[in-house]
Amino acid sequence: AQNVREQTPLAQSFTNFVTINLVANAQLAAGGTAAMSFLPNDVTSLASSCGATYINVGTLLPFYRDALQEISEHLSRHGCKWVLDPVAAGVGVARTEILKGFKDYPPTVIRANASEALVLHDMWQLGDAAGTDEHNGPAGVEAADSVEAADSVDAAITAATDLAAYLALHSPTHTGAVAVSGEVDLVTDGRLVYRLPGGSAMMTKITGAGCSLGGVTATYLAVADPLVASLAASMLYNVSSGAAERASHGPGSFQTAFLDALWNVTPEEIASAPLYLA
Amino acid sequence: AQNVREQTPLAQSFTNFVTINLVANAQLAAGGTAAMSFLPNDVTSLASSCGATYINVGTLLPFYRDALQEISEHLSRHGCKWVLDPVAAGVGVARTEILKGFKDYPPTVIRANASEALVLHDMWQLGDAAGTDEHNGPAGVEAADSVEAADSVDAAITAATDLAAYLALHSPTHTGAVAVSGEVDLVTDGRLVYRLPGGSAMMTKITGAGCSLGGVTATYLAVADPLVASLAASMLYNVSSGAAERASHGPGSFQTAFLDALWNVTPEEIASAPLYLA
Amino acid sequence: AQNVREQTPLAQSFTNFVTINLVANAQLAAGGTAAMSFLPNDVTSLASSCGATYINVGTLLPFYRDALQEISEHLSRHGCKWVLDPVAAGVGVARTEILKGFKDYPPTVIRANASEALVLHDMWQLGDAAGTDEHNGPAGVEAADSVEAADSVDAAITAATDLAAYLALHSPTHTGAVAVSGEVDLVTDGRLVYRLPGGSAMMTKITGAGCSLGGVTATYLAVADPLVASLAASMLYNVSSGAAERASHGPGSFQTAFLDALWNVTPEEIASAPLYLA
Repeated sequence: AQNVREQTPLAQSFTNFVTINLVANAQLAAGGTAAMSFLPNDVTSLASSCGATYINVGTLLPFYRDALQEISEHLSRHGCKWVLDPVAAGVGVARTEILKGFKDYPPTVIRANASEALVLHDMWQLGDAAGTDEHNGPAGVEAADSVEAADSVDAAITAATDLAAYLALHSPTHTGAVAVSGEVDLVTDGRLVYRLPGGSAMMTKITGAGCSLGGVTATYLAVADPLVASLAASMLYNVSSGAAERASHGPGSFQTAFLDALWNVTPEEIASAPLYLA
Repeated sequence: AQNVREQTPLAQSFTNFVTINLVANAQLAAGGTAAMSFLPNDVTSLASSCGATYINVGTLLPFYRDALQEISEHLSRHGCKWVLDPVAAGVGVARTEILKGFKDYPPTVIRANASEALVLHDMWQLGDAAGTDEHNGPAGVEAADSVEAADSVDAAITAATDLAAYLALHSPTHTGAVAVSGEVDLVTDGRLVYRLPGGSAMMTKITGAGCSLGGVTATYLAVADPLVASLAASMLYNVSSGAAERASHGPGSFQTAFLDALWNVTPEEIASAPLYLA
Repeated sequence: AQNVREQTPLAQSFTNFVTINLVANAQLAAGGTAAMSFLPNDVTSLASSCGATYINVGTLLPFYRDALQEISEHLSRHGCKWVLDPVAAGVGVARTEILKGFKDYPPTVIRANASEALVLHDMWQLGDAAGTDEHNGPAGVEAADSVEAADSVDAAITAATDLAAYLALHSPTHTGAVAVSGEVDLVTDGRLVYRLPGGSAMMTKITGAGCSLGGVTATYLAVADPLVASLAASMLYNVSSGAAERASHGPGSFQTAFLDALWNVTPEEIASAPLYLA
């Protein structure tokens, strides 16, 4: 976090229209710099000067399928680090095609909720061939699940570990990480699994808590390895959201206090966030 | 309102880019769950698991005309409840075509300002054939009117009643409602007309007051009939905006306080909002 | 500013998705009325009833190139005043084509940071043919520069003056202005150059400070000439951001306090903002 404030790294984002403002403001409050683009040529021409890229598949438009294939292929070929947020995985044929396509040009980090991690794990067919895969519901059910975050983080441990191992295998630096957000966050590099309790339930009462965590993970990834970036971003969020809950009276003042807390929190406070090896 | 907090119903939205964040945050603060989509397949694949859908025709993109026809037809054929917000009705040929097209696949509820209700009433040719229709200005004039909300709510009573009767006639449950927002809100199911005074003039000094009211109406519509949903949403907004005005010092702190008030207001306070039969 | 509050002029915007909400809210807080559109026919059908139009080239979509050419040509042919914000000038081939295209149908005012002004000056080839143009870096470098605002305002004095002279030459009223935002803002009509110190460094820690200044400049341009509108908007922003910094504890509460300050600031306070002829 100290590093980030000193270097103000640039992370660019291709993200949904609902929370694009909060993603940018959270990246700035966390000490980084932000740039948002949707045209493939805009994204690829900034990729080399960006420390990392954040891609979030919410609010899809018709041209995104081709655009995101071109972008992910470019990032992959040029060894650019990027964070995927598979928002609403399972909803709609376009999103499914896009997410399946990322298997060939995988991100460095995935930030998701439990249902999204389970759906992506299914889509990429990383499950045990013997059928121990615990998430076999049809896409229509995932759809609702993923929006409502019905699955618990623990249900996604295997999926998250498999996904992280796959990311590491295909990463130029042989490292990758998966962060699953929930009441207790889960972060894994494919071998070790960390649990991060804390934070605030108010995070589920504002839109964009998860999206902006993905964006800040990209900011951190610009100056750190995937596991450290994911852990630090989750710790920053848990400390800041706890402080914001204490300073606020509802979701409006909570969001205001949360951005203030992201800005004011000290490296020592972040380091004091609870973290356990599972 | 109590019902909503207990069930956290999912309402999805296809809405403009200016206020999409406030729509989602207001739905969450009112106790619901939010999902925002623009691809027809995304919207239709979630429609069955959503209690209601909110469609707002602000910030049109080129693909919206076909998309919104496909979506409205799907919602209609599957008996899905939805709320239309005919933002800026009368501005631009694409918006006019979209709004005219909704006549064949009508919503369950319309939330509009007076000018928008008048323009839609004209477009759907629901006026008296003898020419008593009080709003005969050309589209170019509507354009400016609708943006500036120049017409008073009272001027739209006939239009609102005709529109609501038309919605009820075509609704699978034979119920529909129209809410016209203004200094005094007007809500009608096509037979009875209610007036709801109160609220705050500061609502006109933030962008998205009307849009987010439409979104929250969809949240309520997921668990209530059209008239009750429209009345309850308007009462919630009048109570909350009054409280927010007292707690704030300008439009910035007003929006923050308004989201807090949506979250903190009690069912008793909502029920105490003034409401008169016209 | 008093004029604006009395007339609540309508300025429409074609602007990026990151900060579109703040642009609209800042225009309302400054006393104006807002309308946001992307379809050329929507923009052109409102152009005659709008006092001014604001165009910001952030977050480009595929259809923008043709749309913005059609819009700028319409505004130019009909003598409509408009403000250009050349966000991220130099990033991507589409943005470069769009910005080059504006040379033939130029705006009335340009609001930019120093790097963007330098890049646009290059693109329009307004520099001295003898090669004294001080900004010859390749587009790839501009890209990073423009996002990071690396160039200082002083480095852009010649570019800004040349650009403003070009705007005035092509304006129906033979007036134009360029505002370059930085630690000290610079405003010129092509002949005189003003420096406006003050403001708050926190403006760089929220997204949309520059965009919303462009939007408010359009609001002011609806009722004032280009130089006065640019100076008054910059003075309003410097006074309001200073007040917001004193009233806040981080970027979240800063943005809230800034919108409150835009609303509460008096004409006398705006007039007291420091302003020097360079």
